[in-house]
Amino acid sequence: MPTIFTKIINGEIPCYKIAEDDRFFAFLDINPLSEGHTLVIPKQETDYLFDLDDQLLADMMVFAKKIAVAQKKVIECKRVGIAVLGLEVPHAHIHLVPLQAETDLSFSKPKLKFTQEEFIAIAEKIKGAL
Amino acid sequence: MPTIFTKIINGEIPCYKIAEDDRFFAFLDINPLSEGHTLVIPKQETDYLFDLDDQLLADMMVFAKKIAVAQKKVIECKRVGIAVLGLEVPHAHIHLVPLQAETDLSFSKPKLKFTQEEFIAIAEKIKGAL
Repeated sequence: MPTIFTKIINGEIPCYKIAEDDRFFAFLDINPLSEGHTLVIPKQETDYLFDLDDQLLADMMVFAKKIAVAQKKVIECKRVGIAVLGLEVPHAHIHLVPLQAETDLSFSKPKLKFTQEEFIAIAEKIKGAL
Repeated sequence: MPTIFTKIINGEIPCYKIAEDDRFFAFLDINPLSEGHTLVIPKQETDYLFDLDDQLLADMMVFAKKIAVAQKKVIECKRVGIAVLGLEVPHAHIHLVPLQAETDLSFSKPKLKFTQEEFIAIAEKIKGAL
């Protein structure tokens, strides 16, 4: 049974894609903590980030860095924060969350709502800065 | 003017050290979100994690993975979560936070208090699992 993220990678579930290479995939979180909140995942199904082998883990961070640099260019924020929780979807993922304040990185706070048009515009903006 | 983290690395400010190699350093956060909450830092003073060059960033994640594996062995938790915020101390750092629930990774919640003896015991426990 493929994870929801594998279905997203395979195009069975739609997403607002940001970037993809042979090993990694990035797309907008549809329950964002802030505008531009992006998920970076390995294409290999692995439950937990630190279960990835060292090389894949290392390369995934370098892939995530490219996305974060693009986010910072086009999304109003002080920093792009990083979070890995991984208790809900059994497919390793890194949250890249544009932050105005340390308290923005709080998964207990209500998520933002955007329309489909807004999500598309945000994704285009970040892709354009890659 | 060295950062507070450089002073910790140099032993000018005491800490509950977990691990150290030639490029990285790990110690307990004294304002922890959970028992065993650890900070991983590069010895090189760099304000923001994604300003590290790709190789150092990649190697820092692999160093952090070792700490997280040790934390998971000896601290009661479902996962070790990761957070990078970096708006307060201008020296890149990764938070490794043992989690029971996704909401545990919330920097707006009150921090835990431990005595010096408790911090020493927690640090010894994690070091023993490395």
